Amino acid sequence: MRYLLLVSYDGTNFSGWQIQPGKRTVQEAVEMAAEKALGCKVNVSASGRTDAKVHALGQVVQFDAETCIPAEKLCYCLNRFLPSDVKVLKSRSAPLGFDCTRTAKKKTYLYTAYYAETVLPLAARYAVRLTQRPKLERMHAASKLLLGEHDFAAFRSAGFTSKTSVRTIYEIKIESQLKMGVEFYQIEISGSGFLYNMVRIICGELFAIGFGKESGILQAFQTGQRSALAKTMPPEGLCLKAVDYGEPLFNFGWED
Amino acid sequence: MRYLLLVSYDGTNFSGWQIQPGKRTVQEAVEMAAEKALGCKVNVSASGRTDAKVHALGQVVQFDAETCIPAEKLCYCLNRFLPSDVKVLKSRSAPLGFDCTRTAKKKTYLYTAYYAETVLPLAARYAVRLTQRPKLERMHAASKLLLGEHDFAAFRSAGFTSKTSVRTIYEIKIESQLKMGVEFYQIEISGSGFLYNMVRIICGELFAIGFGKESGILQAFQTGQRSALAKTMPPEGLCLKAVDYGEPLFNFGWED
Repeated sequence: MRYLLLVSYDGTNFSGWQIQPGKRTVQEAVEMAAEKALGCKVNVSASGRTDAKVHALGQVVQFDAETCIPAEKLCYCLNRFLPSDVKVLKSRSAPLGFDCTRTAKKKTYLYTAYYAETVLPLAARYAVRLTQRPKLERMHAASKLLLGEHDFAAFRSAGFTSKTSVRTIYEIKIESQLKMGVEFYQIEISGSGFLYNMVRIICGELFAIGFGKESGILQAFQTGQRSALAKTMPPEGLCLKAVDYGEPLFNFGWED
Repeated sequence: MRYLLLVSYDGTNFSGWQIQPGKRTVQEAVEMAAEKALGCKVNVSASGRTDAKVHALGQVVQFDAETCIPAEKLCYCLNRFLPSDVKVLKSRSAPLGFDCTRTAKKKTYLYTAYYAETVLPLAARYAVRLTQRPKLERMHAASKLLLGEHDFAAFRSAGFTSKTSVRTIYEIKIESQLKMGVEFYQIEISGSGFLYNMVRIICGELFAIGFGKESGILQAFQTGQRSALAKTMPPEGLCLKAVDYGEPLFNFGWED
C-alpha cells in the first residue's frame, strides 16, 4: 500500500529535507520513525526538498509498505517515534497512480519578515529582520510582473538543475500586520513549482524593490541573468505552507 | 546612573530569570553581557521573576553603573554580547526614585494554547496543545468573577511566600483565532501583580471551565484551597507582555 503523510516541521535544527551523511534531516527522521513503527525499512519521498532551516506547515510525503495499520491511524504510530520538531498531522492511503512529487499541481510558500531596530528573540526563529521599512505598494506593483508563465532561469541558485526553468506563478499576496509592537510582512506565493531558491530570490527582489531598488524583474526575464536581481533572502523566514494535487488529500484548514 | 532595559527573551532554553548555580538563566546572560560591554560587574534586577520556559516580550530590567555610554545607545552595546534568545529592545536612564520591582503598577501576561489532534511543531515552542475544544462563552463568564480585588491565596503554588495574597485583576481578554489550520486561544490578563504560578493556575481553571468543569473560583476565594481549582497550565504558553509604571517608559507598540 502507498501511504501519504501530511508533515509539519520546524526546520531550525534540520539540515533540510534530504538525507545527507552525518547531518540531521527530516527525511531521515521520518524514515527512522516509520522503521520503528512498522518494523521494516521504508523509503520516503516528499513533494519537494526544503533547505536547511526552512519550515513546513504542510509537506506531503509518501512511502510504500505492507502493514495492517489503518492508513488514518498511521500518523499516531509515527508520532510516537518522531522528535517534537517534526510531526505527522494526518495520514491516508494514496489514490491510484499517485506520486507526491510528480502529481503536485500547485505549491504555496510563505515568507515572513519584520522591521525592527533589534532582532526580536520571539520572532527570530520563523521570520527575518529587515533593516529598512519596505513600501508595500512598490512590492505589490512589482509582484504583478511575476504572475503567469515565465522562464525563471535568472531566479535560481546554482547547484540544482531542472530540465526546464519555465514555471507558472498563480498568485502573490503581500500583507503587513502589527505584532509584538512591530510591523511584520508576509509574502505568500503559489505556483506550479519552484526552482532551487526561487522563492527566496523572488522575496529578496520584492523587499529590495520595497526599499527603493529599481525592479530587475523584466531584465531578469529577458537576460536570464541572476545579477539583475537582489540578494537571496535567508532560509528561516520561509515555510512550505501547502501542496495542492487538484483534489483535497487531507482535510486541513489551510488547504482550501 | 540607573539604567532601564526593555528585554525580550525566548524562555525555552532558560531555567527562568533568576540566577541559579549551574543553570542557564536570563539574569546571568544579561549580567554577563553588561560586564563585557561596560567592563565592570553589575547586579541586574527585573520587574519580576519568570519561570523556566516562560517567555517575555517586554520584561523591564534595571541596574546601576557609572559609564559614559548614552543610556539610549546602551541596548546596542549589550546586544553584541547577548545570545540570540535574549535581546534588549530599548534602553534609557531611570526616572528619580525608580525601582522596577516595587514601582510596577500593572503587569500583563499572555497565555497561548491551541486545539489540535497532534502537537504542531511550528506552534509548540510558544503555545500549549489542548486535547479538547474549550467553549469560550463559558470561559468569558467565569473570567468576570476574577476581576477586581480578591485574596488569591488559592491561586498560587507552594514555594514562594508573599506578605499578602491580595491582588487586583484589571482585565481578562479571551480570544480565538484560526492559524495554521487550527484554532488558537489567547488569554490576556493584566493585574496589579501576580502570585507564584497565579497566571498559569487562572488559565488552567478557565480552560477547564471551557471544557465543562464547574467553576471553582468562588469556592477558591472562600476557602483559600488550591484543590478547588484545575491543574496549572504548562510554562511554555506563558509570556510576560508588558510592565506598566503609570507612565510610558519605552516607546514600544504593545505598551499603550
